[in-house]
Parts: sequence; C-alpha cells; structure tokens
Amino acid sequence: MPLWKVYHPENAFSAADKGAIAERITALYRDLPPFYVGVIFEAVPKASFYVGGRPTDDFVRISVDHIARQITDDAIRAAFLAALAKILAPYVADRGLRWELHIDETPFGLWTIQGFRPPIPGTPDGEKWRIENRPSAWQHEAK
Amino acid sequence: MPLWKVYHPENAFSAADKGAIAERITALYRDLPPFYVGVIFEAVPKASFYVGGRPTDDFVRISVDHIARQITDDAIRAAFLAALAKILAPYVADRGLRWELHIDETPFGLWTIQGFRPPIPGTPDGEKWRIENRPSAWQHEAK
Amino acid sequence: MPLWKVYHPENAFSAADKGAIAERITALYRDLPPFYVGVIFEAVPKASFYVGGRPTDDFVRISVDHIARQITDDAIRAAFLAALAKILAPYVADRGLRWELHIDETPFGLWTIQGFRPPIPGTPDGEKWRIENRPSAWQHEAK
Repeated sequence: MPLWKVYHPENAFSAADKGAIAERITALYRDLPPFYVGVIFEAVPKASFYVGGRPTDDFVRISVDHIARQITDDAIRAAFLAALAKILAPYVADRGLRWELHIDETPFGLWTIQGFRPPIPGTPDGEKWRIENRPSAWQHEAK
Repeated sequence: MPLWKVYHPENAFSAADKGAIAERITALYRDLPPFYVGVIFEAVPKASFYVGGRPTDDFVRISVDHIARQITDDAIRAAFLAALAKILAPYVADRGLRWELHIDETPFGLWTIQGFRPPIPGTPDGEKWRIENRPSAWQHEAK
Repeated sequence: MPLWKVYHPENAFSAADKGAIAERITALYRDLPPFYVGVIFEAVPKASFYVGGRPTDDFVRISVDHIARQITDDAIRAAFLAALAKILAPYVADRGLRWELHIDETPFGLWTIQGFRPPIPGTPDGEKWRIENRPSAWQHEAK
C-alpha cells in the first residue's frame, strides 16, 4: 500500500543504506502486513534534478502514496511526519542532504495485490493476510 | 489520460513484451481515444526495489493515474481490476512474478494534451478527438 | 510543493534546456518561495514509452503534484494551463514534440520540507520562508 518513491542524488546511498532505509520505513507501518510496503529508489543526475530552478546534488525528494489508510486527524498527521523525519535523519539530514516529502492518499477500492483486492484491516481475512504476510483468496465475505 | 507507470525487475520484459503489454492496456480503455493511453516502463535494480524491507527482483509494481474517468461504483471497480489482472497474467503472474497495482484519480480540469484541454466525452468535440485519434482545437463550445 | 516529473525521449533535452525549462517552471509559481518548486527529468527509451499502444520517441509526458495550492476556479485553471503551454512551447511543441500534462492535488497537511511542516502562505512564518527562500522552525503559532 504505501508506495514510496525516493529520488536521490547519484551515489548518495549505498545498497546497504537503501536496505536500512527500506527496513525503517517498513517498521513505521507496524499495523500493516510488511509486504504492503514498497520502496523504490531512483538516482537522479544533477542535470536532471532541480530545486528552485537550480540543478541540485544535495536534495532528496520523497513522494509517497498511501492507499490502505487515510490520516485525517492533524495531530496524528504531525506525529507520523515527525516519526518519518526521525527514521530518515541518519541517512539524509545528518549527512547534510536537504529533503522534502509529500504524501498523497488514493482510493482503497482501486488497489490489488496479486490480483486480489486487499481485505479490510481487522476482518478475519485482514488478519490472515497480516499473519501470513502474503495475499490469498478471501475466505470470508467482506462486510 | 490514464498514465501507467510499470516498475519492473531488470530483464523481466523484452521490448516485444512491453509493446504487447501496452497494447493490451490500451485495448482495455476501448471507450477512449487510443492516444489518451500512456504507458511508461521503468526497470528497477534489485538494490533499489524493496517490498517489506527486503530487496526484490521478482516484483512488478504498477501505479496508474486516471484522469478522464472516475470509477465510483464498486462492482465496476472490481470488474475493471479483474480485467486488468487477466490481461497482465501472461506477462506477470504466469511467469512467477509477484505484483501490485493501485490507481489514483486526478482532476479532469487540470489536464491538457498538446496544450488543449480535452473535451467532455460524448460531446461533438469529444467524438472528433476519438475518431481522429488526435487532439485539435475545439470546434464547439463546451456545455 | 509542486513536484514536476518530466518524462521525455532520450536526447530530447540538453542540460541547458533542462535548466531553462526548470527556471521557467519555477517562475510560474511567483507567489511561492522558489525552493518549493522541484523538477525531475527522466529520459525514457523508445522501447519503454508507449502512447496508444505504440512505442514513441516524440512525446513528452508531464505529471505534476500540487500541494501548497488547490486551484478550484475553472477560469484560473484554464489560465494556468495556458501559461504552462506558453513557457514549454519553445522546448516541446515548437520542436515537433507531442506532449501531455496532468496535475494532481495532494493534502497540504501531509507535506514536510527538512522535516518542517510548511506554514500557511501569508502568515508571518509563511512570509519568512518566502523572503529567506529556505525552511526554518516556526517562530509563530499557526492560526
């Protein structure tokens, strides 16, 4: 569900860095089955990456789609964004990289994994997916 | 209008595969002018592609933006998602690749092709675009 | 805030072209701090870029996320899209490249720069960010 796209300067992150960042992001969504969390890193050359009209090689731009959950309460939004900043800090801010992140929220009903529509969290099928950490045909009717 | 981004493992698809997938996707939108349908493939190296915090080379992640049409009826959504799964199966599931897809819906009024705002489907201009399979200046007023 | 993704044929744009396009885009958002404007160019090989099911090497596909501002008035939308077409013309339409653009609008409350939530424009903090052209901790309470 969450799909993270991380646009970063070339050579900013080693493979080990990317793995560690992806693990930290996945751990953030502790109420979701881990396999819901996708992260794609994309190195952008300086001549293709602009902030304020200037080419940049010290900027990380993160774009996230949230599907499984909508966050509407502003205090929860603020806490979530603060948690993000904390887990990313060692790899981004602490290395002197500037960064920006935004999250879009997209329709739950227009989403499939292996062709299955994900069950509502907390339902018996939702629990099955979470415990088995993989998608499967529904055993129960959706309410 | 629909813009498909297909993130896939390196070497998962040949040029012929990509062409066939793009044709099948385009055929799905049979009520739209074919030139509305854009598909971009992007190979992602294993060290840059994570599911559940683990690097992956057997996963296809598809992200779609729908502009021209909103689907609100859940039965139609389910049928559309099932049709998608069917056309993709020979290239993805049948090859043992895992996959996930989600669709966002974006504002019709913030969209242009060649600088023209697309006409409402079914109007005389909408029919002209569909039949000619290219954009053109409006001949009629929008209602 | 606005994040522009420009998917273009290989060799369509020189580094100087990309810089000029990014400057023109940034200038469009003259009421925003320039550092809000991000532009990422991505060259797509012909075998990975499809319009209407056919591989293409003469097409520029632009996908934009607007965060800081929602445009709801249709006359303003039309004027904004016309301004875009005008600034892009010398690099796209005038060179015989086809093009398409769409804009999504995403939640203001799910956005951070350097870990700071951007202030409401026009507030004292909003003015501070705009004048200094960089993010900083809030000095005033948000209303």
